[in-house]
Amino acid sequence: MVPPDPAVLQEAKRRHNQLTKPAGSLGRLEELGAWIAACQGNCPPRPLSQPRIVVFAGDHGVAERGVSAFPSEVTGQMVANFLTGGAAITVLAGVAGAGVRVVDMAVDADTPERVGTHKVRRGSGAIDVEDALTEAEVRAALAAGRAVADEEVDSGADLLIAGDMGIGNTTPACVLIAAMTGEEPVAVIGRGTGIDDNGWMRKAAAIRDALRRARKVIGDPVALLRTAGGADLAAMAGFLAQAAVRRTPVLLDGLVVGAAALLAEDLAPGARDWWVAGHRSTEPAHSMVLSHLGLTPILDLGMRLGEGSGAAVALPILTMAVGVLAQMATFAEAGVSGREAGEPS
Amino acid sequence: MVPPDPAVLQEAKRRHNQLTKPAGSLGRLEELGAWIAACQGNCPPRPLSQPRIVVFAGDHGVAERGVSAFPSEVTGQMVANFLTGGAAITVLAGVAGAGVRVVDMAVDADTPERVGTHKVRRGSGAIDVEDALTEAEVRAALAAGRAVADEEVDSGADLLIAGDMGIGNTTPACVLIAAMTGEEPVAVIGRGTGIDDNGWMRKAAAIRDALRRARKVIGDPVALLRTAGGADLAAMAGFLAQAAVRRTPVLLDGLVVGAAALLAEDLAPGARDWWVAGHRSTEPAHSMVLSHLGLTPILDLGMRLGEGSGAAVALPILTMAVGVLAQMATFAEAGVSGREAGEPS
Repeated sequence: MVPPDPAVLQEAKRRHNQLTKPAGSLGRLEELGAWIAACQGNCPPRPLSQPRIVVFAGDHGVAERGVSAFPSEVTGQMVANFLTGGAAITVLAGVAGAGVRVVDMAVDADTPERVGTHKVRRGSGAIDVEDALTEAEVRAALAAGRAVADEEVDSGADLLIAGDMGIGNTTPACVLIAAMTGEEPVAVIGRGTGIDDNGWMRKAAAIRDALRRARKVIGDPVALLRTAGGADLAAMAGFLAQAAVRRTPVLLDGLVVGAAALLAEDLAPGARDWWVAGHRSTEPAHSMVLSHLGLTPILDLGMRLGEGSGAAVALPILTMAVGVLAQMATFAEAGVSGREAGEPS
Repeated sequence: MVPPDPAVLQEAKRRHNQLTKPAGSLGRLEELGAWIAACQGNCPPRPLSQPRIVVFAGDHGVAERGVSAFPSEVTGQMVANFLTGGAAITVLAGVAGAGVRVVDMAVDADTPERVGTHKVRRGSGAIDVEDALTEAEVRAALAAGRAVADEEVDSGADLLIAGDMGIGNTTPACVLIAAMTGEEPVAVIGRGTGIDDNGWMRKAAAIRDALRRARKVIGDPVALLRTAGGADLAAMAGFLAQAAVRRTPVLLDGLVVGAAALLAEDLAPGARDWWVAGHRSTEPAHSMVLSHLGLTPILDLGMRLGEGSGAAVALPILTMAVGVLAQMATFAEAGVSGREAGEPS
């Protein structure tokens, strides 16, 4: 994978030191602006004119085990809610100036035709007892995710966010994360949408059983997605890998997207250089993803919704980081005196 | 001080539990939205239509001791940079949709007439050896800050941010914070704009000397501002206190505004209920302010610029928090099923 342009990264750092502020005083904002410049291969960077959020929706057979606080029918209902603008992600995207697209990969309901062109099946398998997908379905879902990334980049998207919607989807996400990081099941299990203690025990049992199946195929991302993933997770993995191939920066969301990111980095090593982490989810397994990928989240606001919401909340910070690097005056331009003689630069 | 409306706060929390997301899943965003609703006395809250940033500028005689990496002339030059839009705060405010106003309280240079209507003097005194201001000047500066808050609220501002600009201003800020929190001088001293080790020692000596003078008047905020403050700091304190009187929410910035906030809370107990902390500065004394006021910052991005920049970066998050509470659909409106029977609500 070609990384973001290291020469432009250095040029951006030099430019930051000429802008009318003490060097380094904008902290993480300076790093983020320089990273976007390097992704664009351009300093100063162009404004982020078309950030796009793609929500990948899918149901999961394992939801039948009572691993979520909500029934599976909510997945399809939420797809409708996205399309009418009543969901968190659509509201957040509106403030952040991002477009939202919904892609039905495996919702166990009929959805409007325009969101279902990449649909692989109705509901992925119950991973505690059976495969989530066939190998052909895994490959179709990966290809769909790549195709969606291509479609977005070809339409002018200059920053991509993946989001997830699917009742029960934190269960396969936790299994994949445990399988890929070597963590114990009990360490990765969070409360998801807010299950009670009995729900947590049901989720733990499902994760234990699915992980027993998944551990036989560790090291083979396609087989992992087949055994313990889902069409939505596979599509997100393809999407995140292809964004990097297309040299388009990505703002990562939380747990479910994080599981897909681990797979994408396995499928396309070096892809992570094109990603920043929008936030730290309260789900324990998400912190394992972040440390495994070596990513430091921009925000830590106690969020755990999914849909791409944590990334969307971080988006204005990226927009500001780009604005600072592109629009601030230099000391010379503004006629502002530099540091005192004898002070280090 | 009348607090934000507790009944509306409860109403907002109830509304959050009816919106199409797991209860509590937006974390801090839910708290912030409910707080704005309570400040407005209105649920759902109105959009933040006119957030305003007021940068209070002033020079400090103590800058002559070499406590900053930049010469004092930069203060006036940066005021000009604010007015032409080349500074960090003007760029950040543009992205966040906030207006910026500059108020010259004590710049040691001529500034455009429109920013100097509240000017108290040219440069506050060198606090290691003399008072910063006369008592009459303190009272004039406090009144100026209150008047600016009134002007802004009367013009329709529905959220206020105070920012600072003044070479050397972290020195009086550290003295005031040490005096008001009882911290040792050495614990409060940061690198400000980025001083080297010799500069740090000069700053430590100035803070030690000024704190010796300030400790004689602990418990008397007006005398503290006279002894070891400055006209900019006094104006910010008046501004922050009056914002609370006018029931207008405030997003606090970093170290210098934090010092003013400690004084404002002393002058108008309970004012802090009308404030949230935008970010945590890298300056150690700022964390002391946050813990003294019991405020948890929204962001922690390694920033240390001042100008209101840390608050400005947090502003879109507040805008999003309001948007979520005001615009998301409820489960009933969207026809989305609620939690499974038997699950806690």
